[in-house]
Amino acid sequence: MIVTVSHDADLKQVNRTLAGMGLWVSPAERKEDGDALLVVQPSSTVVDAREIRKVPGVSSVSAPESAHPRVDEQGPVARIGASSVSRDAPILIAGPCSVESPEQIGRIAAALKERGVRYLRGGAFKPRTSPYAFQGRGPDALGWLRQAADANGLAVITEVLSERDVSVVAEHAEVLQIGSRNMHNYALLKAVGKASKPVLLKRSMSATVEEWLLAGEYLLSSGAGSVMFCERGVRTFDESTRNLLDLGAVALLAHVHNLPVIVDPSHGTGRRDLIVPLARAALAAGAAGVMIEVHDKPEQAESDAPQALHPEALAPVLSLLRGAS
Amino acid sequence: MIVTVSHDADLKQVNRTLAGMGLWVSPAERKEDGDALLVVQPSSTVVDAREIRKVPGVSSVSAPESAHPRVDEQGPVARIGASSVSRDAPILIAGPCSVESPEQIGRIAAALKERGVRYLRGGAFKPRTSPYAFQGRGPDALGWLRQAADANGLAVITEVLSERDVSVVAEHAEVLQIGSRNMHNYALLKAVGKASKPVLLKRSMSATVEEWLLAGEYLLSSGAGSVMFCERGVRTFDESTRNLLDLGAVALLAHVHNLPVIVDPSHGTGRRDLIVPLARAALAAGAAGVMIEVHDKPEQAESDAPQALHPEALAPVLSLLRGAS
Amino acid sequence: MIVTVSHDADLKQVNRTLAGMGLWVSPAERKEDGDALLVVQPSSTVVDAREIRKVPGVSSVSAPESAHPRVDEQGPVARIGASSVSRDAPILIAGPCSVESPEQIGRIAAALKERGVRYLRGGAFKPRTSPYAFQGRGPDALGWLRQAADANGLAVITEVLSERDVSVVAEHAEVLQIGSRNMHNYALLKAVGKASKPVLLKRSMSATVEEWLLAGEYLLSSGAGSVMFCERGVRTFDESTRNLLDLGAVALLAHVHNLPVIVDPSHGTGRRDLIVPLARAALAAGAAGVMIEVHDKPEQAESDAPQALHPEALAPVLSLLRGAS
Amino acid sequence: MIVTVSHDADLKQVNRTLAGMGLWVSPAERKEDGDALLVVQPSSTVVDAREIRKVPGVSSVSAPESAHPRVDEQGPVARIGASSVSRDAPILIAGPCSVESPEQIGRIAAALKERGVRYLRGGAFKPRTSPYAFQGRGPDALGWLRQAADANGLAVITEVLSERDVSVVAEHAEVLQIGSRNMHNYALLKAVGKASKPVLLKRSMSATVEEWLLAGEYLLSSGAGSVMFCERGVRTFDESTRNLLDLGAVALLAHVHNLPVIVDPSHGTGRRDLIVPLARAALAAGAAGVMIEVHDKPEQAESDAPQALHPEALAPVLSLLRGAS
Repeated sequence: MIVTVSHDADLKQVNRTLAGMGLWVSPAERKEDGDALLVVQPSSTVVDAREIRKVPGVSSVSAPESAHPRVDEQGPVARIGASSVSRDAPILIAGPCSVESPEQIGRIAAALKERGVRYLRGGAFKPRTSPYAFQGRGPDALGWLRQAADANGLAVITEVLSERDVSVVAEHAEVLQIGSRNMHNYALLKAVGKASKPVLLKRSMSATVEEWLLAGEYLLSSGAGSVMFCERGVRTFDESTRNLLDLGAVALLAHVHNLPVIVDPSHGTGRRDLIVPLARAALAAGAAGVMIEVHDKPEQAESDAPQALHPEALAPVLSLLRGAS
Repeated sequence: MIVTVSHDADLKQVNRTLAGMGLWVSPAERKEDGDALLVVQPSSTVVDAREIRKVPGVSSVSAPESAHPRVDEQGPVARIGASSVSRDAPILIAGPCSVESPEQIGRIAAALKERGVRYLRGGAFKPRTSPYAFQGRGPDALGWLRQAADANGLAVITEVLSERDVSVVAEHAEVLQIGSRNMHNYALLKAVGKASKPVLLKRSMSATVEEWLLAGEYLLSSGAGSVMFCERGVRTFDESTRNLLDLGAVALLAHVHNLPVIVDPSHGTGRRDLIVPLARAALAAGAAGVMIEVHDKPEQAESDAPQALHPEALAPVLSLLRGAS
Repeated sequence: MIVTVSHDADLKQVNRTLAGMGLWVSPAERKEDGDALLVVQPSSTVVDAREIRKVPGVSSVSAPESAHPRVDEQGPVARIGASSVSRDAPILIAGPCSVESPEQIGRIAAALKERGVRYLRGGAFKPRTSPYAFQGRGPDALGWLRQAADANGLAVITEVLSERDVSVVAEHAEVLQIGSRNMHNYALLKAVGKASKPVLLKRSMSATVEEWLLAGEYLLSSGAGSVMFCERGVRTFDESTRNLLDLGAVALLAHVHNLPVIVDPSHGTGRRDLIVPLARAALAAGAAGVMIEVHDKPEQAESDAPQALHPEALAPVLSLLRGAS
Repeated sequence: MIVTVSHDADLKQVNRTLAGMGLWVSPAERKEDGDALLVVQPSSTVVDAREIRKVPGVSSVSAPESAHPRVDEQGPVARIGASSVSRDAPILIAGPCSVESPEQIGRIAAALKERGVRYLRGGAFKPRTSPYAFQGRGPDALGWLRQAADANGLAVITEVLSERDVSVVAEHAEVLQIGSRNMHNYALLKAVGKASKPVLLKRSMSATVEEWLLAGEYLLSSGAGSVMFCERGVRTFDESTRNLLDLGAVALLAHVHNLPVIVDPSHGTGRRDLIVPLARAALAAGAAGVMIEVHDKPEQAESDAPQALHPEALAPVLSLLRGAS
């Protein structure tokens, strides 16, 4: 957004008025005709251009077109089958990092159902930093996951890593997940979009909010159903938490962009002792849900055990969600 | 923390057990005697060393001494005069970025008092990126601030920028603030500590949590009263918020280190439209209070107007705080 | 690497000796038997474990196995057909961001050949942040690129974005490029590895050096020929250059890991006025080559024109390379 | 810089022409009168406004005033007494992290002199993260440092940490150093400026280039002699080097801002095995000198031993400098 101020206006006063409205503007640049140009910085409060136009001395207000019109249109409610997800009706998505066996996922699904959870996560394909690490149980695990979900009336959310697996994952899941390592994998985004399913889109560990929204635009413009944006922490210089959970971005998407945001405090902190406080904080910031890694026998988990909660540890989050909806 | 595993133990099983307890451990390194060493990573859940020692196969658990014993001793309650500040009794600190005139600070102090706020902030000395920007009204402003506080029964929190100003600031304020740009200014930390007052210590924009705690140790070992740790956002790659508010660090200090943490969502976002949701999130994460920039006539403010709230906009935060205490 | 120090040794002296050898060690942790454990930090100079073992008081030195044995084995020379690439024989890879037409790539290839360049780059598939931006000319462009290269005796390096395109790209290029947005796309790494070709592996904008090496391990363990590691700048808080070119990582890979590293100062700075100085710096740091975007009519380029050099502007880099080899 | 394009111009063509000139411009925003505004991004090549004005369709080019006029005026040559420092006459500054004793600094100064080094560094006051770490030998060390320098005909560069120490440091040193932890300590910058001496200004570990230049403006507007800008690495997510040495910023200051830049590869890498390659790279990027920590008995050093070189290890850097000047 760029504000043009007439050459004969009191520029200092205009600057103060705009600042008073919540706008950070760059130092004025004079045009040849004497008018001054002020660039509104991205971290400014959103103010209607018409309000700015009314400020004495302002002669024009220009704004770029949005780069992600379909995302802007979507609105704050995601549809998963017959259900709606929004910050007015926030959800809990829970389940193990990896689907390890029919028994494991069956037990966990039953424990979740019993506590009122309705969305089951679990990885069949695992993106691992090392080629020698456990890579997931693959297509078999998709079947076990579906069966466990069906036996307990749960919806399934699971990650797809390869263009080749989109159709098999789409057959087994209500929601397809794009992992943070693939947010910039545009070939995968297009392939997943074509499956016409709801998508959970994790933010890349160093994506700007604008890049994240544009990844959503790839999905929606390729045919995806609702996109839920999932914040899982960004990468930074401190190692006291596994990632830095960006709840400012969550509030921005929820309150300014009006989008459904899911927060993953498991990856966002990596610490079992901080998951519940940050789940609470996420909901307070405007999240439409939280996604938490759960394992009933973490000492047997094949991956991410340190950030898995026991199903019973979900209680404070569940009671908060019951209060919210 | 380093775990020693006997040469004859089932290392894979020990690894899984530790992970199940919430510990991220580095790949095992074998000693010459065949024992394996596992380094526990900083982002692990805190687990009592005695519990780890009981794991079959573990022959020793070692831990470094804390580098900040006085911070560890302080506990979760900060004392400001006769008052206590903690996450069980969270507070609101409010006031303008700069103290601009006796009238301005008087009006704002009265408006705050009327709404039940008890802590008044306001800058007399302003750390500005440019030498040509407004640098604050200086010592005079300290007097106006004190007078406005006294007239309304408020406690004063204000920043000290220079070793030379410590005594004059200490005469006028209940709490001395170290700004984020000075968290690593060890000469100032020592000088402020010697004033034996409570201190609000802002985190540097790129400080690790450990460095922040060590800055607190400088203060306490020099004689400071209570230290309140103030998170105001760290610097990162995204410009959609002014800084990235690290509520994971807040939860870590509040729940693991048991320290009083104040959160500044004004600097943490820079956006008026996100201050209230992030104040809520901060309290949910475990903050002992929030500090919010307030101005009743932001269009006249000399600095930081875009992130200042009107006093009436504090209402949702105040009602939340009344519920919490 | 963990150093065990006997309980009866002079720990302070051991610490100083290790520091004197170039090792940053963490604070000592005492085992139950009184021995002290010192963890050597990753940013330490590499010192042979046998040298450390000889220090009086040290009773054991342990080291983890490398997580990337195939990368470690590769050595400093990459093979592209009959040619060798190493820091003793550094190369220049040049060409346009996008292959736009047979004429464009033909002209540029001829201009490069004339100046002695032997490696031609050019994108047929472009990873773009927006779904509405130019996405490259696709398979046709691969044909034009091959033709231009053949007409001028050049080797081709081009990016592959999708698992589905690996075979067609492998038919047209001597070297397959993995772009920075796909460094963590493990499905693509595996598919590209299977093509058994040399690969240019760009570092993700927020990858640690260890993650970058592990991405190389994915390639080599799947069958790739030589892997060249390409540094193109990481993402950080400053916008005065497009990315922050990490020449420390280049020196680390070149001198410590003994690997061939290519540096891309075009993306690394985004500024035409800094490309040549940083190409010089890259070679001084130990690069086995530089990759520079070149366009003879940048005012007609479909993408990245601001960071493209005219072919004649390569002269100082070419004369430097002639001196080096 | 903002470019105004007439409402009747071919905007697409103007965009391409500007890109072809090396400018990254933001998406066009239309004014009410139909003209389009294009904001030139900071990472663009510097192009003279008059050249941009000549582009058909461009009706106005505006530019903000520089925020640091005195820095802009200074030029590429720093004066230290009768000597000049610039990238045409680059220097080596060497010496220990801390001045530990008259003998230590005397031995090192002699060893440096013998090799042709003319600038001696050494810390009397050390900014340490922990209050319990060695804080330097203080005023005594200043005397030892001066004596060692005088005995060997060297100029002294040493850090000042406190406003209270400015005068005593100024009495003992030719150049005052501002450490990276104090780049934002504006009270200290003003006090140091008043000493009217040349200053070595280290970049804060998370300062933007613009903030660094503004810190230089604080110094020059307070009376400092020449300011040399010292890059010592910024803080980021990777721990394989101690900091990330930003040679892009070095090239930017040297070639675009025309300023003298000193590079500190000791802190910039923390690794003895990378100091020489990065010193070479720094000079290739346009540095006016390098500052290297040197100790003749690193196993006795009180601080930073792992990144200290033996005096004889300076040989390749010295021979490079002899070639350059």
